Amino acid sequence: MASEEKIVLYPVGYVKSKYVNKGNRDIISQIVIKNELIETLQGIEDFSHIFVLFYFDRISPEKKSKLKLHPKGRADLPLVGTLGSRSMLHPNPIGLTLVEIIKVEENILTVKGLDAYDDTPVLDIKPYDPEGDAAVNVRVPDWWNKI
Amino acid sequence: MASEEKIVLYPVGYVKSKYVNKGNRDIISQIVIKNELIETLQGIEDFSHIFVLFYFDRISPEKKSKLKLHPKGRADLPLVGTLGSRSMLHPNPIGLTLVEIIKVEENILTVKGLDAYDDTPVLDIKPYDPEGDAAVNVRVPDWWNKI
Repeated sequence: MASEEKIVLYPVGYVKSKYVNKGNRDIISQIVIKNELIETLQGIEDFSHIFVLFYFDRISPEKKSKLKLHPKGRADLPLVGTLGSRSMLHPNPIGLTLVEIIKVEENILTVKGLDAYDDTPVLDIKPYDPEGDAAVNVRVPDWWNKI
Repeated sequence: MASEEKIVLYPVGYVKSKYVNKGNRDIISQIVIKNELIETLQGIEDFSHIFVLFYFDRISPEKKSKLKLHPKGRADLPLVGTLGSRSMLHPNPIGLTLVEIIKVEENILTVKGLDAYDDTPVLDIKPYDPEGDAAVNVRVPDWWNKI
């Protein structure tokens, strides 16, 4: 790949969580934003929901190069491209999860529903836009409704 | 910043667009996925909507280091932290936009509503999850309703 294509990012903070169970969307965790970025949080408590963009930092290079998969590893579901799934095995392993803000104290956001492990680097936070982020007339594949 | 914190990503593809107008959410553009990643698209046409994660590659380092801003540059709106806005001036300038898939041909996704300029690097694509990506009881700041 051409070196000029390289995109270098640094975490804005890290997750603090006891998250282990992939199904647990009620989990409460913290996002600890770096001290030097504390001002970037001003006013964020006025939003009820945010998207958290994070980096799956524990994926082997071999898994990262996967192009297709069976959703949830289930052989009874069709083989689909990684970009056509919400698996973490995307070419760039970025997680995107909508969470509820429980509270904001100094540089610590307490959130509900973040499916990221302890110490996961956080790349970005986007306040939820009730118009732009809500799709209407949504269509999903058949296999989606089986998981 | 510690060098071990560095996260290196490569685009999965690039935007082809005539987009110039920040307000135009009806614009049709293309996402051209790299040839070597074509298999990652398998089955994506069964989704009506995707989130596009892209990299704002035309932002000066000075702008990237901004911590607070007036939304839309409007002095009549409060000064808020960059992470508490959907401005492109986040510490990591990543764009997140929900778009509708119009068609998929080979490695080219034609989409509606992508507010990214021509040649913008695309970092990731996430099929829209009508459950996980939809927030209920959403609260936004007062200034949000003025823009």
